[in-house]
Amino acid sequence: MRVLGVDPGLTRCGVGVVEGVPGRPCTLVAYYVVHTDPEDGLPARLLHLDTSLTRLVAEHRPDSVAVERVFSQHNVRTVMGTAQASGIAVLAGARAGLPVQTYTPSEVKAAVTGSGQADKAQMTAMVTRLLRLPEPPRPADAADALALAICHVWRGGTRSKLAAAADRARRGGTR
Amino acid sequence: MRVLGVDPGLTRCGVGVVEGVPGRPCTLVAYYVVHTDPEDGLPARLLHLDTSLTRLVAEHRPDSVAVERVFSQHNVRTVMGTAQASGIAVLAGARAGLPVQTYTPSEVKAAVTGSGQADKAQMTAMVTRLLRLPEPPRPADAADALALAICHVWRGGTRSKLAAAADRARRGGTR
Repeated sequence: MRVLGVDPGLTRCGVGVVEGVPGRPCTLVAYYVVHTDPEDGLPARLLHLDTSLTRLVAEHRPDSVAVERVFSQHNVRTVMGTAQASGIAVLAGARAGLPVQTYTPSEVKAAVTGSGQADKAQMTAMVTRLLRLPEPPRPADAADALALAICHVWRGGTRSKLAAAADRARRGGTR
Repeated sequence: MRVLGVDPGLTRCGVGVVEGVPGRPCTLVAYYVVHTDPEDGLPARLLHLDTSLTRLVAEHRPDSVAVERVFSQHNVRTVMGTAQASGIAVLAGARAGLPVQTYTPSEVKAAVTGSGQADKAQMTAMVTRLLRLPEPPRPADAADALALAICHVWRGGTRSKLAAAADRARRGGTR
């Protein structure tokens, strides 16, 4: 199973691609950070993000996409941009016809480190170890995106399969 | 000048198209409300919104797009969906190569009613009068979208032209 994880952000958006099966170590395929210029207008920034994510999805042909769920408890000014970036990321997966699953930061932390309260350094260290990388992925946005992808592989895409089955049942199998 | 206004929302997204010039009454072209089913998953909802907005932009060929700016001061649960919907709306305009401008609710209210504190009933009444409609547009999401479009026509797209000129100057004319 190949998963493309996205740690959404308007200025820096982390993208990590891994391959693996539940319960086994994953293999790194690639990671990226998509940058947009804060001096550009919002339309140009969202367009750049959309183009980049759509291209990466087409290039790596993942089986599914995992995106970090955004909460509005943080910085009010940046959270709206992060929410918009996450919408673009979810859309990029959906437009490619892929199942898209969102995870909260603590779900990802718990899956990767065993603790929902793990800090950034712990997360980066675990991602480096789990993927047997010679050095930590930089910047940290890329590590977070890889952690999301690992989390989704280990959960076996269970929730998205269940959700899809529920959708089908609700629609009487018409879709 | 033809403007397509979007009052972003995940469950109900208002779209209003008007034509006009600054300082003169505008003419109604069309209005819509795009609905998505709250029981569907986020990817399906954002995809439906993207497809619908992209189709409406292609159909009406506006000169520019105006989108309401979202703040996180409201309901924490719905605001993230609204922010994601607004990102999809801005993207739909940008992907069509159109200038996209965002306005705060009070900018729109002030432009249309003369008061930044106008309530929903006042806004709907003014939109109905300004567009010389036989009855108020329903639901209110459509009236808000029409108000956004009127606001942008009356401002003559000034801010987006200035912003575009500033962008070009900053990039040394390469874009």
